[in-house]
Amino acid sequence: MIRVGIVGGTGYTGVELLRLLVNHPQVEVAVITSRAEEGVAVADLYPSLRGHLDLAFSVPDVDALAACDAVFFATPHGVAQAMMPSLIERGVRVIDLSADFRIQDIAVWEKWYAQAHACPELVPQAVYGLPEVYREQIKTAQLVACPGCYPTATQLGFLPLLENNLVDASDLIANAASGASGAGRQAKVDNLLTEVSDSFKAYACGGHRHLPEIEQGLRAAQPAGATEAKLTFVPHLLPMIRGIHATLYANLTDKSVDLQALFEERYANEPFVDVLPAGSHPQTRTVKSSNMCRLSVFNPQDSDKVVVLSVIDNLTKGASGQAVQNLNIMFGFEETAGLDQVALLP
Amino acid sequence: MIRVGIVGGTGYTGVELLRLLVNHPQVEVAVITSRAEEGVAVADLYPSLRGHLDLAFSVPDVDALAACDAVFFATPHGVAQAMMPSLIERGVRVIDLSADFRIQDIAVWEKWYAQAHACPELVPQAVYGLPEVYREQIKTAQLVACPGCYPTATQLGFLPLLENNLVDASDLIANAASGASGAGRQAKVDNLLTEVSDSFKAYACGGHRHLPEIEQGLRAAQPAGATEAKLTFVPHLLPMIRGIHATLYANLTDKSVDLQALFEERYANEPFVDVLPAGSHPQTRTVKSSNMCRLSVFNPQDSDKVVVLSVIDNLTKGASGQAVQNLNIMFGFEETAGLDQVALLP
Amino acid sequence: MIRVGIVGGTGYTGVELLRLLVNHPQVEVAVITSRAEEGVAVADLYPSLRGHLDLAFSVPDVDALAACDAVFFATPHGVAQAMMPSLIERGVRVIDLSADFRIQDIAVWEKWYAQAHACPELVPQAVYGLPEVYREQIKTAQLVACPGCYPTATQLGFLPLLENNLVDASDLIANAASGASGAGRQAKVDNLLTEVSDSFKAYACGGHRHLPEIEQGLRAAQPAGATEAKLTFVPHLLPMIRGIHATLYANLTDKSVDLQALFEERYANEPFVDVLPAGSHPQTRTVKSSNMCRLSVFNPQDSDKVVVLSVIDNLTKGASGQAVQNLNIMFGFEETAGLDQVALLP
Amino acid sequence: MIRVGIVGGTGYTGVELLRLLVNHPQVEVAVITSRAEEGVAVADLYPSLRGHLDLAFSVPDVDALAACDAVFFATPHGVAQAMMPSLIERGVRVIDLSADFRIQDIAVWEKWYAQAHACPELVPQAVYGLPEVYREQIKTAQLVACPGCYPTATQLGFLPLLENNLVDASDLIANAASGASGAGRQAKVDNLLTEVSDSFKAYACGGHRHLPEIEQGLRAAQPAGATEAKLTFVPHLLPMIRGIHATLYANLTDKSVDLQALFEERYANEPFVDVLPAGSHPQTRTVKSSNMCRLSVFNPQDSDKVVVLSVIDNLTKGASGQAVQNLNIMFGFEETAGLDQVALLP
Repeated sequence: MIRVGIVGGTGYTGVELLRLLVNHPQVEVAVITSRAEEGVAVADLYPSLRGHLDLAFSVPDVDALAACDAVFFATPHGVAQAMMPSLIERGVRVIDLSADFRIQDIAVWEKWYAQAHACPELVPQAVYGLPEVYREQIKTAQLVACPGCYPTATQLGFLPLLENNLVDASDLIANAASGASGAGRQAKVDNLLTEVSDSFKAYACGGHRHLPEIEQGLRAAQPAGATEAKLTFVPHLLPMIRGIHATLYANLTDKSVDLQALFEERYANEPFVDVLPAGSHPQTRTVKSSNMCRLSVFNPQDSDKVVVLSVIDNLTKGASGQAVQNLNIMFGFEETAGLDQVALLP
Repeated sequence: MIRVGIVGGTGYTGVELLRLLVNHPQVEVAVITSRAEEGVAVADLYPSLRGHLDLAFSVPDVDALAACDAVFFATPHGVAQAMMPSLIERGVRVIDLSADFRIQDIAVWEKWYAQAHACPELVPQAVYGLPEVYREQIKTAQLVACPGCYPTATQLGFLPLLENNLVDASDLIANAASGASGAGRQAKVDNLLTEVSDSFKAYACGGHRHLPEIEQGLRAAQPAGATEAKLTFVPHLLPMIRGIHATLYANLTDKSVDLQALFEERYANEPFVDVLPAGSHPQTRTVKSSNMCRLSVFNPQDSDKVVVLSVIDNLTKGASGQAVQNLNIMFGFEETAGLDQVALLP
Repeated sequence: MIRVGIVGGTGYTGVELLRLLVNHPQVEVAVITSRAEEGVAVADLYPSLRGHLDLAFSVPDVDALAACDAVFFATPHGVAQAMMPSLIERGVRVIDLSADFRIQDIAVWEKWYAQAHACPELVPQAVYGLPEVYREQIKTAQLVACPGCYPTATQLGFLPLLENNLVDASDLIANAASGASGAGRQAKVDNLLTEVSDSFKAYACGGHRHLPEIEQGLRAAQPAGATEAKLTFVPHLLPMIRGIHATLYANLTDKSVDLQALFEERYANEPFVDVLPAGSHPQTRTVKSSNMCRLSVFNPQDSDKVVVLSVIDNLTKGASGQAVQNLNIMFGFEETAGLDQVALLP
Repeated sequence: MIRVGIVGGTGYTGVELLRLLVNHPQVEVAVITSRAEEGVAVADLYPSLRGHLDLAFSVPDVDALAACDAVFFATPHGVAQAMMPSLIERGVRVIDLSADFRIQDIAVWEKWYAQAHACPELVPQAVYGLPEVYREQIKTAQLVACPGCYPTATQLGFLPLLENNLVDASDLIANAASGASGAGRQAKVDNLLTEVSDSFKAYACGGHRHLPEIEQGLRAAQPAGATEAKLTFVPHLLPMIRGIHATLYANLTDKSVDLQALFEERYANEPFVDVLPAGSHPQTRTVKSSNMCRLSVFNPQDSDKVVVLSVIDNLTKGASGQAVQNLNIMFGFEETAGLDQVALLP
């Protein structure tokens, strides 16, 4: 049994962490912080937790957090980097769900997040928390930077193609769509039901912060000498709460490959990646509330084009579920501990 | 570890049973039947179960079912009553999610379901599977008739008032609303997204089959000599998948009672009934995917009127979750086994 | 052709007024005000109006408004009452969509709206803008107070019963549900898609501001000597944008009446009230975007209970459409001018 | 005033035609056919039309249809081609909303629709009803084949680029998403609210029937000598009723062009195509219930990639609205007659 803390527990990734952790056999949630809700019982803010958790929000306190075996940051970007040195120094293992330590190139991070990085010295030791690529490094990491939601769905879809250099990496497209929970629990007119429901739109077509993160991940997966991966990324907003669907396009450079076999083999031993039978189309509802990523691969009209479909729950595999998966790896627990929920369907 | 069978596993209560049972620590799903889908892997029909269940639908077979410790019926009305005698005779314990054995008065059943009852002789021994009232009888029952979804939400809301004879029982109103999954997985124009979403309506205002079931349950809860409970019941259809919300109205005959305390005391030891703090309004999303019923009680403007708000997930506490709760009671398992999921919020 | 102004045009009742007025054959929208969006083209805020309206928001200015033949207030409560004297004095005819002039008893208004009324002297001359009751007075009114959304649906449903003293007026129930646009276009966490969609709840069960407005209207409809109407009102929030559904309950004091005929006769000449055939259930989608109210009346199980179902679009007949209907009556236009849209179905 | 008939009026394109035509100043709907609903009042099937239309469905009868000035086919594919010769011969002008006459190459049609074409001899005279390209031919056409919904959104987005040969036409991608009304009003499990809502998926990734129609249209728009347009088309299903959003990708061969100006000039005189200001993202809700197509064009990160966003209401500009637009052109009416509705927002 380990004791964990959560910094910034009032948002959707916070409550999702709690949903998963309160039934985790080896974890006790010891601390959950929020300045705005100090003293409020978590179950008063999120009645879904009534009967499952008897804990109140407290003001972030380094001593209380340092007394935990692991600390999750479920905060907006900028917060984790400010508190990180004091926790790292005291030996706490940290899993950061925010964007603060995902990008290794500080200049790139600062450009896309439009602020100075408060803690560049710790970035090099941050391990990118995509277990399907970095499982070994995660085992011993002290600081894990959990991938973003779009980056998770997109990288898992492209990886088999890029690792084997089977496509023209200079012209990749990710057409992705997310449920509204991706925007978080913030009071903005743009996120009202009356504005978002019963409609669909692209956004950030000129450039989204997840683009550099995805490109970094894709490039790291390429063999030496391959043309550097370059992505066009267009996110869209779905009129629903949970779910990400990525439709990925690339041009095959080698048409002889058996795409279905390639994908099945790549993920044969992955507990949270499921390659669907040939011809199937994954639906986001088949992963709702689950940590699974489901994938399909197509070669339409026998052309040069390969189309990969990838679905995750943005709050689970796209955030808090993956964070728990990382925790399990870091502490030597069963990788699926606390993550065995069947997707909620219908 | 017991072996269970499910008759009629292709519908929504069937897949919901599977969602709960595949993670139940003391249950193995051994048989699942469907004539239409014989030989099809369950996970092919419901991809949410991929990786959780390796079982195919089979044609209903009494021998195979009789080899189970318990059998669930997740069938339309009329099916369970036809197969019941052969299973009961062979000692199998049966949990029927359909309406076949809920109503003790055969004439009433036959009137509302517009057909002859095929097995009236077993009706008297059927125990009504509402644990909050019949827990003791359920422990030893061979045949449990699980309550309907509306009846569960409505009875749990009215029980404290009727058991204590605090309202005019001759004038009760249940204004209830259900998600579309209550109509099942049937190909009907009326249930298309294009017909049901983005709209709201009452239905069956002239009389719904759950009315006699609710009245039977309410009357059974009344003390001797009380005026017989009589209900006006108007169901409505919500543009969403899961959830029932019942708004209950009655006229207080004794205004001195502390309603909040009454409800809290009645359900103090119930693992799946949660009385919210005074002034709270339960939301269906706080019970989505969970077996919990959440209740609030109001006395608006200090009038004679009492208003009770009651929410459940119609597929969980309103059907398959309650069925598993009954199984746990029948077999002496922890009552919450397999039912500890936190509601999916957001 | 008359010139109209709209004060507070950035909210949902504002844009709904524009949707209707830009195609009104006898109206030109000359002024639309907003302090926050001064100088912004209306079609930039609401792209649905691109190509239909070439007008920018301006700061409220009494001279500009006084140059209009009619002025609509589509503002939060408190705004209209502050500006009203200067406009009334200059002879402008005003249609107020807010709650400022709906309630004749100033003390009641001040209690429910928790502030002092800034302009009590004009309240007596305000005509309540429910054309089905006050058409004659509206024709010559200078100040029309448009009914709220719940009050419109509720009063139209109860009127035939109360006007003819056919029910026990002391025990009326209105169980109503509204789409989320009823909460307006305000940045609040409670109104986010992630909080409101895929869920259902009651709210304000202890008392809603529309209660005194409804009771005032119902009482005014009763014949002399009748027991004063008293209502229990429970509003609910629907996971959709538009539509109100009211389910009304009362106890018949005279069971001999032909309810269907009563309702059909009451509304035979009303262009915007449609009594459905006996046995039908109105759906909110049959009035979406239209100014129609559709009604059904039931007498379930031949009991003493009468159940009336009433649907409107909360932004149209419940707000802006009714405002235009009032304008038409006030200026002698065809009552249906600008209001002939067919509901958007599917 | 012309008299029109509608064959197959029970589906969603049928009721959408009626919504538009009952308020068309120069059109009287004289006949509406349905074998299944013969004798049923249209307003009984679609209560939204109560008070707007007093007409009953009749069995299709050539004489009755031939007495109309124009006949719309709102039927599944295969129906129009069977009845077409008798109507064409008698001089009726026909607007076919189905796929029967959209594709000029009979072999292609027969391959994708998997049946023999019953009337290949009339295909050459059919004019493709996309007014933005074929307005002149439509004026005098006797038979107009209305474009499909995806083809309308996709072609309007690609046209400016292809007509001017600015992109590599051999590698076009259309990633499109449609509301569920695109699947029609058919009783299928796959279209139930419980299956489709709260989820998102791609479908027909291996090949959709609209692909050859789109490619035919794109190729017709190319200048002589250009590389033949080749499209990868992946449709997706949105959890909502109305709306199509197409996200189009191509590689620029000439980066010097001013894309915003190109699009604005191309559509400057089109009443139903609206090019949004640079940097805007069109939302489907800004065209809901309207005949408008709204477009945006992007050049992300100043790369070679051009991204076009295109939204329509699939039942209006994607079907019935465009059909009325064609009728207006054919009969010399104002092109916008009956089509001046403002989109329903919110």
